[in-house]
Amino acid sequence: MDELVALCKRRGFIFQSNEIYGGLQGLYDYGPLGVELKNNLKSSWWTSMVYDRDDVEGLDASILTHPDVLKFSGHEDTFTDPLVDCKSCGLRFREDQVPEHCKAEDLTEPREFNLMFKTNVGPVDDGSSYAYLRPETAQQIFTNFKNVVDSTSRTLPFGIAQIGKAFRNEITPRNFIFRVREFEQMELEFFVQPGTDDKWHKEWVKSRQEWWIAQGIHPSKITVLNITGDDLAHYSKSTVDLMYEFPHGLEELEGIANRTDFDLGSHSKNQKDLNIKSKTIENTSSNTKLAIQDLENKKFIVPYVIEPSAGVDRGILAILNEAFKIEKLDDGKERLVLSFKPHLAPIKAAIIPLKKNNNDLVSTAIQLKNNLQKLRLGRVVVENTGNIGKNYRKHDEIGTPICITIDFDTLEKNIVTIRNRDTMAQEKLDISKVPDYFKNLLLS
Amino acid sequence: MDELVALCKRRGFIFQSNEIYGGLQGLYDYGPLGVELKNNLKSSWWTSMVYDRDDVEGLDASILTHPDVLKFSGHEDTFTDPLVDCKSCGLRFREDQVPEHCKAEDLTEPREFNLMFKTNVGPVDDGSSYAYLRPETAQQIFTNFKNVVDSTSRTLPFGIAQIGKAFRNEITPRNFIFRVREFEQMELEFFVQPGTDDKWHKEWVKSRQEWWIAQGIHPSKITVLNITGDDLAHYSKSTVDLMYEFPHGLEELEGIANRTDFDLGSHSKNQKDLNIKSKTIENTSSNTKLAIQDLENKKFIVPYVIEPSAGVDRGILAILNEAFKIEKLDDGKERLVLSFKPHLAPIKAAIIPLKKNNNDLVSTAIQLKNNLQKLRLGRVVVENTGNIGKNYRKHDEIGTPICITIDFDTLEKNIVTIRNRDTMAQEKLDISKVPDYFKNLLLS
Repeated sequence: MDELVALCKRRGFIFQSNEIYGGLQGLYDYGPLGVELKNNLKSSWWTSMVYDRDDVEGLDASILTHPDVLKFSGHEDTFTDPLVDCKSCGLRFREDQVPEHCKAEDLTEPREFNLMFKTNVGPVDDGSSYAYLRPETAQQIFTNFKNVVDSTSRTLPFGIAQIGKAFRNEITPRNFIFRVREFEQMELEFFVQPGTDDKWHKEWVKSRQEWWIAQGIHPSKITVLNITGDDLAHYSKSTVDLMYEFPHGLEELEGIANRTDFDLGSHSKNQKDLNIKSKTIENTSSNTKLAIQDLENKKFIVPYVIEPSAGVDRGILAILNEAFKIEKLDDGKERLVLSFKPHLAPIKAAIIPLKKNNNDLVSTAIQLKNNLQKLRLGRVVVENTGNIGKNYRKHDEIGTPICITIDFDTLEKNIVTIRNRDTMAQEKLDISKVPDYFKNLLLS
Repeated sequence: MDELVALCKRRGFIFQSNEIYGGLQGLYDYGPLGVELKNNLKSSWWTSMVYDRDDVEGLDASILTHPDVLKFSGHEDTFTDPLVDCKSCGLRFREDQVPEHCKAEDLTEPREFNLMFKTNVGPVDDGSSYAYLRPETAQQIFTNFKNVVDSTSRTLPFGIAQIGKAFRNEITPRNFIFRVREFEQMELEFFVQPGTDDKWHKEWVKSRQEWWIAQGIHPSKITVLNITGDDLAHYSKSTVDLMYEFPHGLEELEGIANRTDFDLGSHSKNQKDLNIKSKTIENTSSNTKLAIQDLENKKFIVPYVIEPSAGVDRGILAILNEAFKIEKLDDGKERLVLSFKPHLAPIKAAIIPLKKNNNDLVSTAIQLKNNLQKLRLGRVVVENTGNIGKNYRKHDEIGTPICITIDFDTLEKNIVTIRNRDTMAQEKLDISKVPDYFKNLLLS
């Protein structure tokens, strides 16, 4: 983990947030390479959910959330961690994370600490008007259910996908970007006919595993965990966690929950008319019926919901961990390489003129860069330092799939050299064929 | 404006946030089409800033911000609006937005109201540990200046680009998504050698106008306004606003400011050694020197900063307003059309089988959809309703550039009909040529 954190800072993937003022715990900034990696991961998820399927719509709701949303979702009452104070050192800890030097007799009885961030909204600051920073993106999908159904004429089964920031005031943030106070989620709420929920739950567990594998996670590193008994959230009929072997241990990468009709039922008006199966509290605040009409018998149904919910940041940590390799080379030296899948690589290709500031070489390189950039398949850079070996090492370390060298053969015979990050093999190619080579690399 | 707001809700572009609980003022959710439009606009900006140039790096920093960042930026002291209370109706207003029915004698003297949202961080809730929701994305670009320089070896001039949410506790949010409490910004901080700042400022004003025009804003609707005198922010040497004729009046779409060395100077340690030209308050909290070494004379320079800062949401409003047209047709009827530039359109193409549920037609449509989707150029949908006229009208209203009809000619002769949104002209094309047609539409 330490090597990974150091590489992330040195190469511009991830920095501690607010670092020049001593930092704020549990917050990180994504640097020039991190933002590309993160955008690529989010785009891969969105493509697989919204574009490649025909049964999912997208959404992007606000972060500031009305207290009623989080009252009826159950977060105001249950989104808590047990907190203890140590009377000896004066610090506070999550009950299961008290450091060894605090003795049991110094600890207070645990009390429940709500993890939601709260802020005053509007010019009156008497506590009457406040909002929460959403603790998950899911709830605003439920509250927009009718808006989406009305504007798209969807029928069951269909899903609503959302990517965005969520916030949890963790008592003890830790393990780099794994447990943080501000993070991003990729959540799908997939609405199905009650009775088909178990089948869909199984399908989503399978589909989500396949997706993570396509992002470069080795199948042997994923453990499928059935959550049972007390570990099951109050809204869930059954939950499956995809657990990944993080550098700090086996932990959740994504959870796939069968949330039943709990959420739509909880946020709906006229609950009594809707034959809701889960246990919801009475809602007299909502002004909307969150149900869908059966086209045949005209009856209103509250759909069941299957929720695949993934953390972007822990996804990034898993992908970095998986891609990070230190390889022994034939000459006895070592090289550090990040072997990202090409579609995730922050930089797709580096174009390297053999000599620095040579006009012909550099302008040919820039022209090729512009041609590749026009394909809209990600970032391409020109390296004008004249040191090919150093550029290869740099681009191995940041995970660039190919380096393309422009030399005098290019000027005379239109031949470039393409060097592969993983095999280190070099091949010659006519410069006119590079765009197709590049498309094959990224669209296959 | 009212027609636009109604269309946005009906077709799934923009919904009022938290609507089922009565809403929260100044917050909006982007629905299935809105999220695509917004993502397309952000992606167009990122492409033009980070990919198509060679002198800009990206960043994605946290929203929760250390109070020291906003102390030394000047926000704690000056990011305020004058607030007055009406003793008669009991409500509060921004001084320049008091409604007519409140009489002058009922109003209190104006006092300064800070627009930043604040929230407690960590398990101790005694006010000692708090953060702000960033009021602009810019500040975390400045605080990361050294991290980016160290990890990318950049020299002047170069820029750092960021897209993300920002929050302002507006006293009276209004005009739909124009003045809201939660919004997105696209900000570039472009660092230049002092003395070259006026030249770069001019270049960026020109470049940003061109970009907005490429997004479909008619040049005649943009007014370039030089901000002078008291209207100039405390950090600015000169600011140019690009003003757009919004439905509610001429207002700022983007500001391009010459922020001088104020921000880097303010956040730097050892200020006295750095020959900072602007007026900064003394900073003994920062642990980092925010300066860059001149490679020739080894002296540290605090760069000047040119900042083109655009609002995503007001950009969306301008683009919707510009695209919105009600056209009289030859038959006397009217049609509503959103004539988005193809790269911004939420749906790039609709594929329409002539008959609903006809296996051959529908499977041909799905296959074409999959082929186009593989090009990774945006969302493509299949419309399986069997009503071509209705589908044309729908896709005119949501701005889909082309509809492709699959009929019996397709099954027999591989011929599809492509219908153009703007001209309503129809042309026949061999199905094998559709992918190239589609690429030309979106990549030209």
